[in-house]
Amino acid sequence: MAEVISAIQAVDVRFPTSLTLDGSDAMNPEPDYSAAYVTIRTSGGEEGYGLAFTVGRGNDVQVAAVRALVPLVVGMPVAEALSDLGAFSRRLTGDSQLRWLGPDKGAIHMAAAAIVNAAWDLRARREDKPVWRLLAEMPPEELVDLVDFRYLREALTRDEALEILRRAEPGRAARQAELLESGYPAYTTTPGWLGYTPEKLAALSAEAVKDGFTQIKLKVGADLDEDIRRLRLAREVVGPGIRIAIDANQAWGVGQAIEWLRPLAEFDPYWIEEPTSPDDVLGHAAIRRAVAPIKVATGEHTHNAVMFKQLLQADAIDILQLDASRVAGVTENIAILLLAAKFGVPVCPHAGGVGLCEMVQHLAMFDFVAVSGTRQDRVIEYVDHLHEHFVDPVRIKAGRYMAPLAPGIGARLHPESVSRHQFPDGQAWREASAVVA
Amino acid sequence: MAEVISAIQAVDVRFPTSLTLDGSDAMNPEPDYSAAYVTIRTSGGEEGYGLAFTVGRGNDVQVAAVRALVPLVVGMPVAEALSDLGAFSRRLTGDSQLRWLGPDKGAIHMAAAAIVNAAWDLRARREDKPVWRLLAEMPPEELVDLVDFRYLREALTRDEALEILRRAEPGRAARQAELLESGYPAYTTTPGWLGYTPEKLAALSAEAVKDGFTQIKLKVGADLDEDIRRLRLAREVVGPGIRIAIDANQAWGVGQAIEWLRPLAEFDPYWIEEPTSPDDVLGHAAIRRAVAPIKVATGEHTHNAVMFKQLLQADAIDILQLDASRVAGVTENIAILLLAAKFGVPVCPHAGGVGLCEMVQHLAMFDFVAVSGTRQDRVIEYVDHLHEHFVDPVRIKAGRYMAPLAPGIGARLHPESVSRHQFPDGQAWREASAVVA
Repeated sequence: MAEVISAIQAVDVRFPTSLTLDGSDAMNPEPDYSAAYVTIRTSGGEEGYGLAFTVGRGNDVQVAAVRALVPLVVGMPVAEALSDLGAFSRRLTGDSQLRWLGPDKGAIHMAAAAIVNAAWDLRARREDKPVWRLLAEMPPEELVDLVDFRYLREALTRDEALEILRRAEPGRAARQAELLESGYPAYTTTPGWLGYTPEKLAALSAEAVKDGFTQIKLKVGADLDEDIRRLRLAREVVGPGIRIAIDANQAWGVGQAIEWLRPLAEFDPYWIEEPTSPDDVLGHAAIRRAVAPIKVATGEHTHNAVMFKQLLQADAIDILQLDASRVAGVTENIAILLLAAKFGVPVCPHAGGVGLCEMVQHLAMFDFVAVSGTRQDRVIEYVDHLHEHFVDPVRIKAGRYMAPLAPGIGARLHPESVSRHQFPDGQAWREASAVVA
Repeated sequence: MAEVISAIQAVDVRFPTSLTLDGSDAMNPEPDYSAAYVTIRTSGGEEGYGLAFTVGRGNDVQVAAVRALVPLVVGMPVAEALSDLGAFSRRLTGDSQLRWLGPDKGAIHMAAAAIVNAAWDLRARREDKPVWRLLAEMPPEELVDLVDFRYLREALTRDEALEILRRAEPGRAARQAELLESGYPAYTTTPGWLGYTPEKLAALSAEAVKDGFTQIKLKVGADLDEDIRRLRLAREVVGPGIRIAIDANQAWGVGQAIEWLRPLAEFDPYWIEEPTSPDDVLGHAAIRRAVAPIKVATGEHTHNAVMFKQLLQADAIDILQLDASRVAGVTENIAILLLAAKFGVPVCPHAGGVGLCEMVQHLAMFDFVAVSGTRQDRVIEYVDHLHEHFVDPVRIKAGRYMAPLAPGIGARLHPESVSRHQFPDGQAWREASAVVA
């Protein structure tokens, strides 16, 4: 009998990060980093792991959204599912009733991401490869077949995508060797959370430089005078040679963003991230025209490839920050990487949270080896929280992500981390309640 | 002791409409019209009713999303909540953790819509007015204070909004009288579902004209030859004087939309609705430029005011189709009506489903009395399904919505309809399972 997808389990896992203000920014004062943690099981006893990241309350809704998708793919032959993960992804995002909750956005789309990434994880484990290498060794035709061009064609045709991949093919082996040798550049957001004191900001900024990072990121947007002080302090500590990105987490309107950035310009911020509503393509374009040479970056809340297409068509961004679990996982991210390559915009993935670093590095590395073919001006976000809960945590050396060697996408949590942080009954939450009470 | 919001209940209500193919279109072949049905209760024993509409599977996720929002407002003094429904709405959409599931989109945003509309219903009941009249009798300053201008200012300032409302103020009483006298024009989608036979299409089209409708709508986008046949048939039946809108429900890419519409042009379609992805502002603009004089309409999946702002800024639409429960309810729809008035684009609300006609008529009527001041080229969608389940169903006469007189927003279901259609245990679902089995 053919091996089938026999079950998909979703668990509500939350980490009480709000107790230390890790992750605090202008729009997220007290996040509890969380995941709808997904395990795909096959009738042959294999497993694949994925997750959708959230910041606390609502993670139960995210789990409910995953569970609503489960019946669409349970029972599918594993060979059918894994040999065409494009069709598998469309089955999850295209259900005629469930898509009403999106379409292609919000909790139901992130639920698809968790399952799609778990399926990619399963496939990579069966082929005994990390996902970046699985992708980087696929024939261009197979990669292009994964892309749903329906809403993208006027910006990127199948032939153009194929041409991009074919152009990169001759150098794949050499770049794979380079990647294994020297990794992929990272930047760190660890020093810059809004909830941190100036002393902590200064100490962590200095430490980041000492650790080999050439870019750090500060959160801004809650208080202008405070932003000036913090940015001045950080610039003094790291010196002129280190890039400092700033991140407003959607705090401003279009005109306000332009005004707010004027007095910050003297500290030479490298990019302004999420200056306004993530939905505002035309607003980002207006801000970009006004604040150059400060670059405009966005993407962690950009909900699908159609939105990224427009950000690129409208010349609205200098930096594309894709996320591993906001859009529908690896499959949709392949389309986004191809769009970015077509438009010549560097991809600097969003990470942090829980498991986002572990997953998203695969996409950046695939991009280097087989799509854009370069690491120039590309960096993956890095935050040094919660990696200890993963079976295959990221490895950072001298400010660079080392290429993961373990098979899969990296989202697998230690079973004891899952049970300890299960919400609301895990031991960590019983202890957190005791602290608060 | 001050009266407080003591409880908010959300119930999973579904109607087995897929058994008759009512509501079938290119993307929704078999919908089961459903609602996350919300009741707000006060400690004083009063109630308000709202709902978020879905098309079946996933309605449980929608209910979970409502329940996730409930703790944000339960316990609030009723007077505080109802006297500033702008702040009340922002409390629901701005929660720092829950907004990750959007932001301002998808299930969590529709959940806010259901609660916000229930709060408007409660306020209207307390003031013994239908919502349209409650809004149409508010001072312009109070209306403008409800709007969150953060992401809208460069397209619409508070002063411009105030000016629009003040300009309409002198004529309010006369237009209210006109409205009570002659109602508001409707168009009907009843003849046009894809699942209907040509005979049923022809009979229902003829009936629509006989009933006084001057516009009907047909679903298109699944099969071009079929669309030509159906559109020719409908045009023959209704004659040249009746407007025929067509609706592709997102079936096409941008280039494909333009191609597909070419052979349909000879049947003089009035507007093409949802020609492509609802997220594709620039795509709608490109289609509009190519297919004129066919008008481009969209909005039922446009997830917030920022997206509508861009559709208007980019000259992407001729017709703005707001929806009562896709964006965050009456409050956000006030902003959208003001944006439409600023840009001079007529609003023709999306309705149908379950309860959408009952709710959205209030917005169109408020627009006529106090915002745009005109019914010219404005029509509210009408579908004659499921109205019998409502305590205050719409009243249609000679192809027009009669202004509702009962207090509230119209979303209150008969208690027996709720219990009969509760999913999965209501009697209607036990009977539907028996039919399928």
